[in-house]
Amino acid sequence: MKCTKCGSKAAVQMRQHKLALCAQDFLAWLPEQVERFIRKYRMFTRSDRILAAVSGGKDSLSLWDILWRLGYQVDGLYIGLGIDGGIAYSQKSQQLCEKFAAERGLRLLVVDVAETYGQPIPAMAERTLRGRDKPCAVCGLTKRHIMNRVARDEGYDVLVTGHNLDDEAATLLGNTLTWSVGHLVRQGPLLEGDGAGLVRKAKPLCRIYEREMAAYALLRGIEYIYEECPYAEGAKSLYYKELLNRLEADRPGAKLSFYLSFLEAKENGLFALQPQEVRERMHACPTCGQPTTAPGECAFCRMIQKVALENRT
Amino acid sequence: MKCTKCGSKAAVQMRQHKLALCAQDFLAWLPEQVERFIRKYRMFTRSDRILAAVSGGKDSLSLWDILWRLGYQVDGLYIGLGIDGGIAYSQKSQQLCEKFAAERGLRLLVVDVAETYGQPIPAMAERTLRGRDKPCAVCGLTKRHIMNRVARDEGYDVLVTGHNLDDEAATLLGNTLTWSVGHLVRQGPLLEGDGAGLVRKAKPLCRIYEREMAAYALLRGIEYIYEECPYAEGAKSLYYKELLNRLEADRPGAKLSFYLSFLEAKENGLFALQPQEVRERMHACPTCGQPTTAPGECAFCRMIQKVALENRT
Repeated sequence: MKCTKCGSKAAVQMRQHKLALCAQDFLAWLPEQVERFIRKYRMFTRSDRILAAVSGGKDSLSLWDILWRLGYQVDGLYIGLGIDGGIAYSQKSQQLCEKFAAERGLRLLVVDVAETYGQPIPAMAERTLRGRDKPCAVCGLTKRHIMNRVARDEGYDVLVTGHNLDDEAATLLGNTLTWSVGHLVRQGPLLEGDGAGLVRKAKPLCRIYEREMAAYALLRGIEYIYEECPYAEGAKSLYYKELLNRLEADRPGAKLSFYLSFLEAKENGLFALQPQEVRERMHACPTCGQPTTAPGECAFCRMIQKVALENRT
Repeated sequence: MKCTKCGSKAAVQMRQHKLALCAQDFLAWLPEQVERFIRKYRMFTRSDRILAAVSGGKDSLSLWDILWRLGYQVDGLYIGLGIDGGIAYSQKSQQLCEKFAAERGLRLLVVDVAETYGQPIPAMAERTLRGRDKPCAVCGLTKRHIMNRVARDEGYDVLVTGHNLDDEAATLLGNTLTWSVGHLVRQGPLLEGDGAGLVRKAKPLCRIYEREMAAYALLRGIEYIYEECPYAEGAKSLYYKELLNRLEADRPGAKLSFYLSFLEAKENGLFALQPQEVRERMHACPTCGQPTTAPGECAFCRMIQKVALENRT
């Protein structure tokens, strides 16, 4: 297989684009694509202050690398979850994020969950109904809360996450199999802020396949944590990813066309509700001030109080 | 495994309903379910004249049997497609429909495509772009046209088809993977007529699993054609069925919940358009008078003219 651009030996083949590229051309092509999607979905400009949520994994570190190379003003946010799993998962991923930032002279903000809220995620989860089986729901809630809080408090214009096409297609399939209206209406490359408490969120990698992101990290020499979170095993999202991988194997491009036809249908007014209408029903949490779906304290503050109470007794 | 109702040996197990039934209780239970769905979705009443499209397969013949046993006024419509496939497919299925009707003293209408339009389906398909690879698109178009025409001309109140849950879930998955707005908005247990040319259509088996329909036909002793249409091989619908079967195997009830959550979301106003709004954009074909999406002759009449023209030259 030869590089479509220069004819030398190809390193990455992308069947869905009928494209094969050598390492050098691939490393130029991928950021060009990301830049194209940033503009297409009007995510942010070079005058915006961007906060990238980084986990130490290939997607988020590559995203940070790409945005930095493209000349955007982007800081990193690492959230220390306190997950060990016998592989020092959180410790290792924090070190990788710190090393990445130091090597490029970039600013990394760190929030440690245990330091800030008294307990690491697994301990917190054990004390709540939400986390009885697995800490994933508690972890998701906590991360969303912290990401929004930090982006808002530190005055960032937009929060970016490293969700790739496989992530987005899996989420979409999950939301579709259950027809979760609110999630379907809000899913997309960009979720506008509401000018009150909810920060603008963007996913610049939403149209890039996971295997392309892995190739980027590898070819660019980015050190990232290879291990999945020890709690990810058996996660629904992995199940949906596998299902979509089978579909993709039978029909190259199926994953991308599923996601893009969804965006197009939404753009053409498929759904009765608009994302902002779903959000207009939101209220400010009296404790943290962040937006929540029901009046009264938000789910995160209620969880933190429950955990604190359990600790005291 | 014992029958949940009478404790004797169970013949059919339905994991998604946590139910196992003996032959006798199953043969009573399934029509009760169908009756429940006919009422729930306000499909028709005992004063309506019903036309059941029958193919000779397990679903449509069982549907006819069930509606007849439930005391509905229901005639059958068999469409002779002229498909041989080395197994005398159309001939055999027509004989089975005729035998079924004769045994029960029911009226069967027969439309033979070759007699009426000059060519059997496979020959017709070969002469059109639409049927270049496979006759399935031409066949679907022809059947929809004939079913609607006969139901309208003969003054039936509603046309019923034997689509089961597996069919509906596969169609839904296909429409979802491509986000086909028009199809999604119109898919459901009942499609209202428009009082002009489009006949009311209902699918009383839409919530019954395919394997339950097979069990019904078997236990009721209905003779049906076991073979799939020779052209069905490689059909997308079969591919989606297989995919959903894997999902169902991992999570009993997944297929049903996918379909039901879709109906519920639609009922709650998920989509911006209503089925009748999609239909308001329709026009009457100047040749056959049936509704079509674009002004001018409908796709069926255009196809028939093309086939006639090719024959003359």
